[in-house]
Amino acid sequence: MAQGSLALESAMRDVAEEIDRQFDLLLPVPADPRARLYAAMRHAAIGGGKRLRPLLTFASASLFAVDPACASRAAIAVECIHVYSLIHDDLPAMDNDDLRRGKPTVHRAFDEATAILAGDCLHALAFEVLADPATHADPFVRVELVTELARAAGPVGMAGGQMMDLIAEQSSFDLATVTRCQALKTGALISWAVEAGAILGRVPPEGRTGLRGYARDIGLAFQIADDLLDAEGDEEAAGKKLRKDADAGKETFLTLLGPERARAQAGLLVDQAIAHLHAFGAEADLLRDIARYVLERDR
Amino acid sequence: MAQGSLALESAMRDVAEEIDRQFDLLLPVPADPRARLYAAMRHAAIGGGKRLRPLLTFASASLFAVDPACASRAAIAVECIHVYSLIHDDLPAMDNDDLRRGKPTVHRAFDEATAILAGDCLHALAFEVLADPATHADPFVRVELVTELARAAGPVGMAGGQMMDLIAEQSSFDLATVTRCQALKTGALISWAVEAGAILGRVPPEGRTGLRGYARDIGLAFQIADDLLDAEGDEEAAGKKLRKDADAGKETFLTLLGPERARAQAGLLVDQAIAHLHAFGAEADLLRDIARYVLERDR
Repeated sequence: MAQGSLALESAMRDVAEEIDRQFDLLLPVPADPRARLYAAMRHAAIGGGKRLRPLLTFASASLFAVDPACASRAAIAVECIHVYSLIHDDLPAMDNDDLRRGKPTVHRAFDEATAILAGDCLHALAFEVLADPATHADPFVRVELVTELARAAGPVGMAGGQMMDLIAEQSSFDLATVTRCQALKTGALISWAVEAGAILGRVPPEGRTGLRGYARDIGLAFQIADDLLDAEGDEEAAGKKLRKDADAGKETFLTLLGPERARAQAGLLVDQAIAHLHAFGAEADLLRDIARYVLERDR
Repeated sequence: MAQGSLALESAMRDVAEEIDRQFDLLLPVPADPRARLYAAMRHAAIGGGKRLRPLLTFASASLFAVDPACASRAAIAVECIHVYSLIHDDLPAMDNDDLRRGKPTVHRAFDEATAILAGDCLHALAFEVLADPATHADPFVRVELVTELARAAGPVGMAGGQMMDLIAEQSSFDLATVTRCQALKTGALISWAVEAGAILGRVPPEGRTGLRGYARDIGLAFQIADDLLDAEGDEEAAGKKLRKDADAGKETFLTLLGPERARAQAGLLVDQAIAHLHAFGAEADLLRDIARYVLERDR
């Protein structure tokens, strides 16, 4: 990790351990022909990844004195959606990737059919985890989390952004369209991850404006950093194939702005994200550290 | 439809119209690059199909004086899951089918990546629909519907059964394993469809035993009828490719029991399903008609 604060490094380690522990509990391999399906889900879900979305949920929940056990369930749910989307995104019909988080992708380690089903199962699991009373005693909180996550994952969120991204390879998007595509593709789930902490803390929608602004800005900064990483990063550190955007001839923040302006824009977004947290004191320092990390990360 | 009662025919027509109408409202095509995604979802979701699961939800809800508008939302949710599973099941890596409901499959009419995403979107949409206050005023009812549908769709339900089904092509299942596979693959979603009516009617779990037995029995009868249809049916009436089980060399109820015993077993299951409804009067006649239809259908 480049230039992370000690507190951030320690939080990232704790969250990664907690997420692995929870997935291990949620996905016991059964002694029947479904064993292969569970093995595929475990391959994708356990061990590896930055766990950025879970980290955001924990950091945001800690602002509102949310029980960490509840935050952990919301964190697992958003990571279920993220991991399922990676499995499907890596399929031959989509990005056709062989490597993810430094390991073979699910369809390479298993097969395509198993990968499709493992993604589908993690998708369903996200909602099962959220709807459970262990996530929050109040069912209104649980249905709000479910509603918002379903939107963030579906055609008005992540999956809609992935569709735009597919079409970007055949057309020539302008900056406004690239921004909208990325706001859906990665922004919607990052926003859910941040807002979930406030929902668990029973903060009404009008009290979440700052966090929403923060999430929107780090979401875009994250994507610009991703574009830069794709163009300039190290494949071994990233644990996945790079130079994909250039190969696909796709317009990105990088092709539209050039590396210097893209980097400056991302820096501006990080500053802006941090400014959105002005109502919070030192308790939001982890969120501030995450905003800086989003830009400085090497994977 | 073979030998259906007039009441059943009329209910099937009404439900089919309502489901098409709801999908049309839920899936307006946006004027942006996501249009293709929505077109693919509409292609799969609107027009065609028996709408058996929605019909079961409406029939079960009518036993408990549930507002039809609420029943309609649960019906749409289960059909979203069913349609998404058909889209993914038809993919080249899975069953590689060109025809579904008499139309080209989604990956044939569009492309594989769009089909994967359209399935994923319908999956998320199911939970968004259920969690909405329009489905039921009581959030406890909504979270129960979400929890049970997520289970019915995931590795302990439909997707788990699909995995077993994939493995069935390479191994030699006995009758107990085929039964378990089918109970998961088609039974779990059919059970949810039936039970949803009772959940919406606030019937506590201990009051749902009869309906659960009914659902379990028609689920298996449905699958035996499917095996018979696959072996003996007419492709044009079915609107999909048949003789797939024999081509795959897979053990089914039909290969394990032979056509005569399979037909007798299915008849027995239908009688048993109807017997489970003994606590209900004429208000359950539609459910009784559906049980008979499951066996006599030609598609």
